[in-house]
Parts: sequence; structure tokens; C-alpha cells
Amino acid sequence: MNDASIRTLINGYRQGYSLEQPFYTSSEIFDFEWQHVWKKYWLFAGTTAEIPKPGDYFVYTLQNDSIIIIRGNDGEVFAHYNTCRHRGSLICLEEKGHAPKLVCPYHQWVFEKDGSLFKARLMPENFDKSAYHLHPVKITAVGGFIFISLSDYPPPINQLETDFSPFLKPFKIDDSKIAYRKKYTLRTNWKLIAENFRECYHCGPAHPEYCSAVIGANMKESADEVLAEKKVDWQNKGLATETVEFTDQSFHFAIRYPLRPGVESYSLDGRKVAMPMGDHTDYDAGVVGMVVYPNFWMDAVSDYMWTMRLTAISASCTLLDLCWLVDADATEGKDYNTEKLIEFWRITGEQDWKLCENNFKGIESSRYSPGPYAPAEYDVVKYIDWYINRLKEGIRSGRNSFE
Amino acid sequence: MNDASIRTLINGYRQGYSLEQPFYTSSEIFDFEWQHVWKKYWLFAGTTAEIPKPGDYFVYTLQNDSIIIIRGNDGEVFAHYNTCRHRGSLICLEEKGHAPKLVCPYHQWVFEKDGSLFKARLMPENFDKSAYHLHPVKITAVGGFIFISLSDYPPPINQLETDFSPFLKPFKIDDSKIAYRKKYTLRTNWKLIAENFRECYHCGPAHPEYCSAVIGANMKESADEVLAEKKVDWQNKGLATETVEFTDQSFHFAIRYPLRPGVESYSLDGRKVAMPMGDHTDYDAGVVGMVVYPNFWMDAVSDYMWTMRLTAISASCTLLDLCWLVDADATEGKDYNTEKLIEFWRITGEQDWKLCENNFKGIESSRYSPGPYAPAEYDVVKYIDWYINRLKEGIRSGRNSFE
Amino acid sequence: MNDASIRTLINGYRQGYSLEQPFYTSSEIFDFEWQHVWKKYWLFAGTTAEIPKPGDYFVYTLQNDSIIIIRGNDGEVFAHYNTCRHRGSLICLEEKGHAPKLVCPYHQWVFEKDGSLFKARLMPENFDKSAYHLHPVKITAVGGFIFISLSDYPPPINQLETDFSPFLKPFKIDDSKIAYRKKYTLRTNWKLIAENFRECYHCGPAHPEYCSAVIGANMKESADEVLAEKKVDWQNKGLATETVEFTDQSFHFAIRYPLRPGVESYSLDGRKVAMPMGDHTDYDAGVVGMVVYPNFWMDAVSDYMWTMRLTAISASCTLLDLCWLVDADATEGKDYNTEKLIEFWRITGEQDWKLCENNFKGIESSRYSPGPYAPAEYDVVKYIDWYINRLKEGIRSGRNSFE
Repeated sequence: MNDASIRTLINGYRQGYSLEQPFYTSSEIFDFEWQHVWKKYWLFAGTTAEIPKPGDYFVYTLQNDSIIIIRGNDGEVFAHYNTCRHRGSLICLEEKGHAPKLVCPYHQWVFEKDGSLFKARLMPENFDKSAYHLHPVKITAVGGFIFISLSDYPPPINQLETDFSPFLKPFKIDDSKIAYRKKYTLRTNWKLIAENFRECYHCGPAHPEYCSAVIGANMKESADEVLAEKKVDWQNKGLATETVEFTDQSFHFAIRYPLRPGVESYSLDGRKVAMPMGDHTDYDAGVVGMVVYPNFWMDAVSDYMWTMRLTAISASCTLLDLCWLVDADATEGKDYNTEKLIEFWRITGEQDWKLCENNFKGIESSRYSPGPYAPAEYDVVKYIDWYINRLKEGIRSGRNSFE
Repeated sequence: MNDASIRTLINGYRQGYSLEQPFYTSSEIFDFEWQHVWKKYWLFAGTTAEIPKPGDYFVYTLQNDSIIIIRGNDGEVFAHYNTCRHRGSLICLEEKGHAPKLVCPYHQWVFEKDGSLFKARLMPENFDKSAYHLHPVKITAVGGFIFISLSDYPPPINQLETDFSPFLKPFKIDDSKIAYRKKYTLRTNWKLIAENFRECYHCGPAHPEYCSAVIGANMKESADEVLAEKKVDWQNKGLATETVEFTDQSFHFAIRYPLRPGVESYSLDGRKVAMPMGDHTDYDAGVVGMVVYPNFWMDAVSDYMWTMRLTAISASCTLLDLCWLVDADATEGKDYNTEKLIEFWRITGEQDWKLCENNFKGIESSRYSPGPYAPAEYDVVKYIDWYINRLKEGIRSGRNSFE
Repeated sequence: MNDASIRTLINGYRQGYSLEQPFYTSSEIFDFEWQHVWKKYWLFAGTTAEIPKPGDYFVYTLQNDSIIIIRGNDGEVFAHYNTCRHRGSLICLEEKGHAPKLVCPYHQWVFEKDGSLFKARLMPENFDKSAYHLHPVKITAVGGFIFISLSDYPPPINQLETDFSPFLKPFKIDDSKIAYRKKYTLRTNWKLIAENFRECYHCGPAHPEYCSAVIGANMKESADEVLAEKKVDWQNKGLATETVEFTDQSFHFAIRYPLRPGVESYSLDGRKVAMPMGDHTDYDAGVVGMVVYPNFWMDAVSDYMWTMRLTAISASCTLLDLCWLVDADATEGKDYNTEKLIEFWRITGEQDWKLCENNFKGIESSRYSPGPYAPAEYDVVKYIDWYINRLKEGIRSGRNSFE
């Protein structure tokens, strides 16, 4: 597939219908969207809860790029390409760890946390260390969420910061901890997971546990009355309630919606599963949901937060990294039980992963043809519009930054 | 490799010599033959014995296409592409099963056995269901053998039906059952298996068990006398005996040949292994052998039938699905013992799979050059001629149907 | 990547800096270097110790080519492409074995050790056997080392023979045996292993065991004095001591250097691990090191020899075959203990394999950029120069031989 046929496909997009096959299966489209979506936008990397102390680091791998995310001496976060400036070796070999200085395991070149070259053994007298800083990656932390961008000129993120902060503040992510993490490698296109998380047309038949916790998820009942009532309570407690909708130019979304009356948390029996997080003092904050295109989904209830980092590996392969966060003061066995904490989203998630893999297999058919989205899938249409507009921008600009 | 070099290779075919390397190893040639052989001809999918009741189905996967083969309400068979007309999900997730209606697991669109859309939840009033029939696949059943074609205009199959019916009738496949099935994924080109099954030049040294059952397979003795004698017996019993030879335009073959005197069945000790199938009343029907290009081989003795469905996965990978059929009234443990039933063809087959894999590995060599077929390999030459003629047709037509 | 961009990359080589990424990761560069380095030069295949008797053979696989190396009736060695001249099957199926004649397992064509066709069953009267010799491969044995070339016109090897013979003679490889062999499949480019073995800048931190045996390996002490003293001893014993340096046109290297005073062998405790090999009578011969570009490294001490055969599988995959040779008269359990014999190089090697794999992973980064070699890495520069010059020759000649 050459540029002209990519252009034809993009321009032939028919709103209200699922995308043509190559958007889900073609490696050329994948490369194109990697350039114009993934390398241009902000990507969720993790939370500050994962690297509480200076020198704590973790590594995020995006295609061939391993990125070191490390906490600096003054609490700030840095991101560097994990490739030594001498002969290119990986510097950090583990997925996470602690390093007072970053030392290349091959010939022991030593870098500071901020990426500057501290020492290179046996190099000539006139060797200019300042020319061998680790290659930097753009990074920002928003209320405990760490976003990086592989672009040197990423889109502005200040509106996201303004919009997310009031929702995130009560959770005090900096004072939370990772109770559990789980990875899934799925044989599906990353957009099918994104589509799945933008509609509840499938929820009734597919997610009995989820529907038992969330009013209206089954498309058979209205949540309006409960929502109206709850909104007053939340506002009285100072909790953010105004939905942040996607706009044509934005890439983030936030919402607070109610649990079914009597339900305290996302759990199989509806009961709480941990102590309230951060500033929360009860189990009545509903659900805070957040999305950042292209790779971040989050759902938080009063007692825990569930983050989903999506990483596109290829047109047919997607990696999911899931984290369950609880208050830093919560003790496993006493304040929460890990299995109880995670089972709601483990079960609901695994129902979705299977749907998304089967969706992909069917789309691979030579006779797959785009079908009509149901009215209940209006948010999927919005998402696909956003995606197609990014590709159109890519065609126009030919560049992968907001320069 | 571009079209011009494919054309040059095809036109350079030297009759009497094995094919040039790219016919066995090149993915471009594979794509070309997929278009002009596999997507144009009839492919054996399975037997009606596998889906006795309305709603019984099995799935056959060809490249990216999953095909549902399902028994209809009136005993007829339907074939559909296994991709939902809503957002493309697989509908049938299992290799075989039973379904009164075909329900997509994602958003519960419901299709009839004949592929028509019965119900789509929450769609608008004016939604036209008749426009969302499952994409159909051509299908026909011949004496219990189910053939499908991925072409909308496949070649006529009536001559095959006429020729096969008298051979198949006594086996009553509709009243038989699958006693055992076994899959092999081989690292070899599909044509090397086809070649292997069109010559017995290798049988003497490679297949001691087979040679002990079949006169002449070792190329050291004549079967003429026994055959002449047997033919009279068979004709007296009303059994078909006239060999159906491949012609320039046909793609099917049938033969009846004798077992070694005293041998009752294809078994290690020459004894019968099951009750006679269908209308057979003794163990004296010899062997019925059938071939349908490009993917079907069958050998049947009085008491069981062995079918081989060959599926090309790539230039270097071939999938074999083997079935052993016995009379529906036969009971395992009483009328037959599975291990005794299958061991003859399991052993003989595995000898061949190994030969075919080693043949492929040697052909991959940069110095492989086509060698001369031995006189005993005349049927391989015939097969290769047929294959090359299909590719030549492909060059001429540029289309993958008989339109 | 097309020819023009390969040319640009080669011409843009900046001496003193590690290579640009595509030299390590691109499959097109890999194909180019396969043509102009691997298919043009001599490749180490193994030792004569592996095939002591006529009919003994082993198989060496290079890309898709399986090569049979077999000892002839008069002690000479032959190499043939392992593909039958009938229909191309592999002839030798095992990695090593013994065969009075080479018989194809498919249709039993029989070849002599020298590759001539001895017998082809059931072929026509007028069949010309002389036209179906196995395709030959160039082969030569130097002091027990077997080299083959996939070129019909490989570079002259007589200077290597002259230079290596005095070093190899005392080891009497023909009277030695393989005590142990071990394979590693590494996810790294073959040149990164070559680079690793041409510098000791990494040895101090990475190889404590190696540094305890070799003076100066840690870059903190001089070996000059010990070397000067030892040289006199060695010359008095008739041992070769003159280093054979790489030149612009040569592809081989040999050296003798001292072990740390008091150290007898390459072993963890510095003690001898086997009886002296061949003509050696003590443990005082130091280390003989040899390199033949592109695929051979060897280190020998008085009591054992360690050979490393490197085989490039793809840009990102390299196979190592390691052998430990001891005197043929040595008996395991009595004269040597296998674990003691191999642990020094197993440990040191595995340290290197890990470094080379991590080096490759870092080089895969989109931000990898060539870095400056340290002064201590001068021999790596020399090696890279050789490599780049071969590619430049390739550009000029367009051919893969010295014709």
C-alpha cells in the first residue's frame, strides 16, 4: 500500500460505519498512524506512585524505543531514551528499579538522573562530555499521571491539566501505591479496544458484573434521576462533577457518574474493597472515568483507581498494562484483599479482551465490510472521527509534530 | 518478484523436471496460485457425517477467511463468511458446534442458518435487515463430500458428481461417523504433498506397511492379474470399477484397485478393523482412491474411509486434516478399536510427512536445481502440468473465476 | 532501503565512530553483506577432529543452505550442498553421522563421498549419471581447521595457511577430540559479537574471571615485562611468537600472549584442567588467539582449545557454536573434568552474550546515534574499517567472488 492508497482510504471514510479493513490490519496504515498519532500526541506512561523516591525509575517500551522515566533529586521527573551515547547499549536492563546514577553496563559510562554525562572512563583529555547527554523525551506530570511525548513539539497539554486536576486532586496519587499490576498481550488492533471502551451497546449481554454496579449500562434503564440527586451531594462535598467532553481539537475526557444505589465500589458484591483513597472519607464519590487519546483509560471509585495503559505493538497486536492503585496507608490483608480488589475489573476486562480479539479475527476476513454503528455507539463514531482527522492532518502536514 | 518474473518462471516450465525453486518457496507465487488455483476451484471442506442435524456446523479456515458450514432446516448445507455484518466480529468461535440461530457474541445480532439477518437490537426503525445477509460462500455436497468455492463462478462440478457417485454410494457417508481426526502442521509446500501422493517410486523403501497391503506398490511385482480377476467380482457385486482419469480440463480422479490377496483392510496385520461400511457386506471391495485438486485425497476400504484435507497456509506451511470414518452403527470397543483403525494410515502418513518436510528443506537450498522425474513418476508430471496450466490461465485471465 | 541508500550509508561511514543503525538492524544491509562478505570469504566450518574416519560427516547450515562436510576415503575432506539432484530432498538429515555412501532418503539415489552419483533406481537406460554430481562447495583444511567458501572464486588462503601453521602444529588437532560443544542463539547482530571480541575496554568491569587470568585485560596494568620474558622461553621451546596482524587485504590474525604468572590455564582457579595437548609437555605456552573474519575466533592454552564459530542468521539473530577440544588421549573423569574444563569460557562467554544482546537492543532505538570509540577500542575500528571496505568492494564489483 503506497501513500496514494492510504490517502484514498482516509478520504473515503464513511461516517457512521466501522472503518475499512486496512485501518485495522495493514502495517502501512499502522506505520502512518504511528507517525501521526502515537509519535505526535501525549502518551500515558504511568503514575508518580510508581517512583516515589529520587532515583526510582521505570522503563516504557514503544516500538523499538525503550524510555527511562526517572525521579530526579528535587521530585521532578525525567525521561530519556535508553541508549548509551558511547556504543548504544541499553542502560537500564530491568523494567523498574532504583539508580543513584545511570551506569551503562557495557563500558561503564555514567549519566546523571537528568541525563547529563557524568563520567566516561579512559576517554581522551579533550573529550567533550557535554555533547553526550542522553537523548531527552518530553515529559509532564498531571495530578500524578505521567505523560510523555515522542514529539519534540507535542500539542499543548495545559487544558487537560486544568480539566483533570479537580477530578484527580482528592485521590492524592502521589500518596497512593500500586496494589497490583497485570499485563495482557492481545491479538487485536489497538483501535478495537478503544472502540470497545467507548460504547455500552455490548455491556448488557457481555458484562453482567459491570451492569450490576452501573445504572443504565444495560441500556434498559435510565440513570438520569440518580445522577441528578448525586450531583448535588458531590457538589456539596466539593467534588468535580462537570463532564469534560471531547471536542474537535481536544484529546481528553473526564466524567463522574453514579454507582447503582447501595453499591459502594466496583466489586462483585457491591461492597467496598479498600479504605477510601486520599481525601475521600466515604464510599459515595461515584465513578470518575477518564480517557486520554490514544492510550489511556482510567476508572476510579472512592476506594481504588484502575488505570489502563494501551500500547500498540503492531496492527494485530496490542499490549495492555493495568494497575490497581490504593491509598499508600492501606495494608494488604488488613485494609484490602488483593483478589477482592482486582476481580471486578479482571473479569470485566477479560470479557472485553476476548470480544476485541474475536472482533479482529472477523475483520481479517476478505469479505469483511464496514457495518453501521448503532445509535448507542455514538461515542465510537466521535472517536473514529477524531482518529481520521488526525490522519488527515498527517496527510496535510507530512510532519509528526505541532511545530 | 513482480508479475513479469512470475510470467517468465511459468513460461519457462520444463516438462518432466521438478519445478523451479520459487514455485515451492516464494510468497509471491503462493499469492498467485492462491488467486488462480485455491480461490477458483472447489475445495473439500468435510463430510456431511460431521453435521448430521439442522444447526450442526463446523468452521473451515482458509487464509484469513473463517467459513461457517452449517446444516439447514431441510438437510441442505449452507456456507457463510464468519464475519458479522455489524462490526465484523467472528460469529462462531468454536471449530464445531450446534446453533439453532447464529448469534454474534459481541452485540447479539442474530442470523438464520441460511445467513439472513433475523434480529439486530436497538437499531433504528428504518434499518433494512435485508441488506445485511451474511456473505455467502458457494457450496455443494457430492455423495457426502462437502465442497466449497471461494469463487462466485467456480468451474462446473457436475462431471465430478456423475463420476464419484457410483463409487461413493455404497459407503453411505450420510450414515457414517467420524471415528477419529488428526491434524498435522507441516513445514513444507502443499504441492510437495500432492506430488508425494501421485507416485509410488518412493513406496518400496519408505512404506513397508503400505507395500505389504498393496500389490505393486513396491514396483517389483505386477498387479494386473489380481486386478483382472477382482474386477469381475466387483462388477458382479455392482461396484464401480472404471478408473476416472484426470483430463486436461478435469480436476478429479477415482480408482478402485485390489488389496493383496488375503488382505481384508488397510491394517498392519491385513485383518479387518471395523464392520463393513454402508451397503458393503464383506471385506472384498478393494481400495477406492479419490483425488480432487487442489486439496483432497481419499482412500476407502470396505470397513473404513480415510480422508485427507490439505490446506495451504503459506509457501512453507501446510495443514493436514485427517479423518477416519466408519459406519454410524459401529461402536468403539465393540465393533472397532480406534488405535487398530488408525495405525496403518498414521504410520504411512507420518513416513510421508517427514519425506515432504525434508524435500522442502533441500529445495530451499540456493543450489537446488530441478531434477528429472523418473518414469515411475508420470502421474506427478501430469499433476504439475495441470498446476502450470492453471497458472497460465491465471496469466491470461487476470481473474480468479470462470465468469 | 534501495541500492542507492545502501551506497550512501556506506560512503557516509565516519571512522572512529560506531556504525549507523541500519548496519546492525536492516535486512537489506544484511543481504548486502551476506553477498559481499559471507558468500565471498572463507568460513570456519569445524575441525578435522570431528570427522576422524572416512565417511564421517557433519552438516553446516548457512541461511537456506545445508552443507555436508565429509571425510573422503583418502583422508581428504569434501563439501557438498545437501540437496539431492533428483527432486531436491535433503540427503543427510542429522547434524553429524557416518555414511559409507550418501543415500537420499526419498527415492534412494546414491552418491559417493566425493559427490558423484553412484546409482539412481529405475531411471531410463540412457540416463547420464555424470550430469548429476552433488553441487560442490570449496573447502580447505589448515592445520585441522576446516574452512569452506560459498564462492566459486574465494580469496587466496595460502598466506593464512603459512601464518597459522606454526601456531597450530603443536596442538595436533588431528589427534584431538571434542570434549564439549554448546550452542547459543543470540538476539544480536553478528558484528556486535565481533566488536566485543576485538576490545578489552569492557573487560575490567564485565569479566572478573578473565581478568584474573590475563595480565592487562583490566586496562590497569602492563603486560610488557611478562611478555618479554615469556617470549624468550617460548622461542627456546620452538613455539611461534610473532603476532600476525590484520592488514588492509588480509582477514586473519594470530597472537601468543602470556597468562598471569602462576596461572597454568584458562580456568577459574588458574590451575590446569586437562593433560597438555599434542606436542605440549608443560602448561607454559601462554594463550594462542586466532581470528578469521568474518566468523571464527579461537583461544587455546596448553591443555585445551576453545573454538567459536559464528553464524549470521539475520540482522537481529546470530548463532554461536562453541567447541572445547582436548588431546585425543585424554579421558573424561581421569584426565579432565568437563565442568572444570568449560566453566571459564562458559562464564566469560555468557557475560559477553548478555552485553551483546543489550547493545543490540539499545541500537534499535530510533534515537541511537553512532558514538566515539575509546582509544582502547582501536582494534574495533580496524575491524569496522575492514568490514566497510568489503562493502565498498561490493559496490564496485557487484559480484560476490574474486573472479
